[in-house]
Amino acid sequence: MGGTIALTLAYDGSGFAGFARQPGQRTVQGELERALGTVLRREVEVVGAGRTDAGVHALGQVVSFPAAGDEPDHGVLLRSLNALCGDGIVVTEVRPAEKDFSARHSAVAREYRYRLVPGPVPPLFLADLAWWVKGPLALGPMRDAASYLIGEHDFRSFCVVASAEGRRTFRCVEHIDIAPETALGEHCLVIRIVGNAFLHSMVRIIVGSLVEVGRGRRPAEWMGEALEAGDRAAAGPTAPPHGLVLWHVDYPEECWL
Amino acid sequence: MGGTIALTLAYDGSGFAGFARQPGQRTVQGELERALGTVLRREVEVVGAGRTDAGVHALGQVVSFPAAGDEPDHGVLLRSLNALCGDGIVVTEVRPAEKDFSARHSAVAREYRYRLVPGPVPPLFLADLAWWVKGPLALGPMRDAASYLIGEHDFRSFCVVASAEGRRTFRCVEHIDIAPETALGEHCLVIRIVGNAFLHSMVRIIVGSLVEVGRGRRPAEWMGEALEAGDRAAAGPTAPPHGLVLWHVDYPEECWL
Repeated sequence: MGGTIALTLAYDGSGFAGFARQPGQRTVQGELERALGTVLRREVEVVGAGRTDAGVHALGQVVSFPAAGDEPDHGVLLRSLNALCGDGIVVTEVRPAEKDFSARHSAVAREYRYRLVPGPVPPLFLADLAWWVKGPLALGPMRDAASYLIGEHDFRSFCVVASAEGRRTFRCVEHIDIAPETALGEHCLVIRIVGNAFLHSMVRIIVGSLVEVGRGRRPAEWMGEALEAGDRAAAGPTAPPHGLVLWHVDYPEECWL
Repeated sequence: MGGTIALTLAYDGSGFAGFARQPGQRTVQGELERALGTVLRREVEVVGAGRTDAGVHALGQVVSFPAAGDEPDHGVLLRSLNALCGDGIVVTEVRPAEKDFSARHSAVAREYRYRLVPGPVPPLFLADLAWWVKGPLALGPMRDAASYLIGEHDFRSFCVVASAEGRRTFRCVEHIDIAPETALGEHCLVIRIVGNAFLHSMVRIIVGSLVEVGRGRRPAEWMGEALEAGDRAAAGPTAPPHGLVLWHVDYPEECWL
C-alpha cells in the first residue's frame, strides 16, 4: 500500500488530560493508539492536527498514521475503534490519504469555535461546553476588537510564554466571527476563529481578551495595542478550556485518495 | 398578595430519580423545594406541569407555589435558587401569576422533543441527550405513522398499563413533526410532539413505535392498528428516557400578572 490513513475524531475534553500522550494520564492520543493497537495488532503512533489542551473538546480533530495494507474495511475499522475507545471519544470518519499526508503538516486551515453564555442564567445542557460569563457582553465592541487580529501578525502576546521562547510566533488569522446561536434550546454566543495554525493557548487568550472588551473593561482599540506589545502580559486572561472546540481542519483536495 | 409564583426550570434528568419527590431519592422537586425552603425560610410545596420520569430532561418545565408576599425581588430569587440548587437544575425564569394559577391544571399545551441519532457513528456531545439507534431511519414512513396519532384519541395502547387502569385515557395530540437538526455540530432527528396532556410514558412509547416503523420493522398503518387496539402490547417498545426533553408548557395569557 504505502498510503496513510486519516481518522476524524470527536471528543469530550473533560475526561482527558489533553490530546497528547503522557505517561500515566488518560489522553486522547493514548486512548486512540491503544484501540488502534488492538484492532491492527501492531504498534501505531498517530499525528494529530492540533494538540488540544486538557479540557478542550473536538468535533473535527484529524489524526493520521501510516497504512500497512493489513487494515480492515474502513466501515469495520470505524465500528471497531468506536467499540474499543472508552467514553468520550468517537471516530466519525476513516479516510485514505496519500503517502506523504500528515494530519499536522498537510493542514491548511484550522477552525476553532468557542461558546459563551452571557447573562444571569447559567447554561444547563451547555454547562460543560460553554463559559458562563454571568454579565452581558457587548457584541459590537467585541467584533471591532477582533478585527485587529485578522491577517498575518506576530501573536507572541497571545501565547503561553514558555511555548513562545525562541520560536517563530507569526500566524495568520483568516476570520473571526462572533454570532448568537441557539443550541439545544439555550442561547449562547459563538466565537468562530479560522487560521492557518495557532500558538499554544492562542485561541483561549484571544477569547479571554475579547471578553474583557465585551464586558466593557477595555476599549476595542486595546486589542491592537495588546497585539503590538509582543508581551503575554499585555493581553487578557486565558479563557477556560471547556468552552473551546477544535471544530474543523482543512486539507487540500489532492491529499485524499 | 395572594398570587402565585411560577418558575421555569431546565434540568438534566440523568442526575435525578425523576421529577416527583420521593423519600431518600434525589429528585427535581425535592431539590427545588429544599432550595426554596432555604431562600424563603418557610416550607414550600410546588406543583409541576409534567411529572417527568427518571432520566428525562426538561428545558421548560414549569412549577408553581403560592406567594406569601415575603418573596425577594425576582432577580434575587432566581440567582439565589441557582446558587442553592445542586448541579443539573437551572431556574431560567420567575414569573408572577394569578391566585388560581396551577402549573399543572392551567397548562393548555405541552411540547416534548425527542432526539434520535441514526447511523453507524455514535453521538458525542449528544450522547446523554439522544437515543443512538445505529441503523438508518426512514423519515417518510415515520411521518405517515405519526399522522395516525393526531387528534383526540384513546391512547391506552401508549400508556404504562398500571397507570391506565380505571382512568380516562383520552388525550389530544395536536402536532407531531419529525425533522433533521444539527446541534453542536452533530446530526440528529428531532421528534416534536405537542398535545394538551400526556399519559405516563406516552411520548416514549410513541417514539419507540415510530422507530419500529423507521427501521422498517412495521408499516406505517400499524400505528393506526396499535392505537385502535387499546392494549399496551399492541404498540412498540418504550424509548429510553435520555432522548426526551419536556421542552415547553403553554398557558393562557391571562394567567400572568
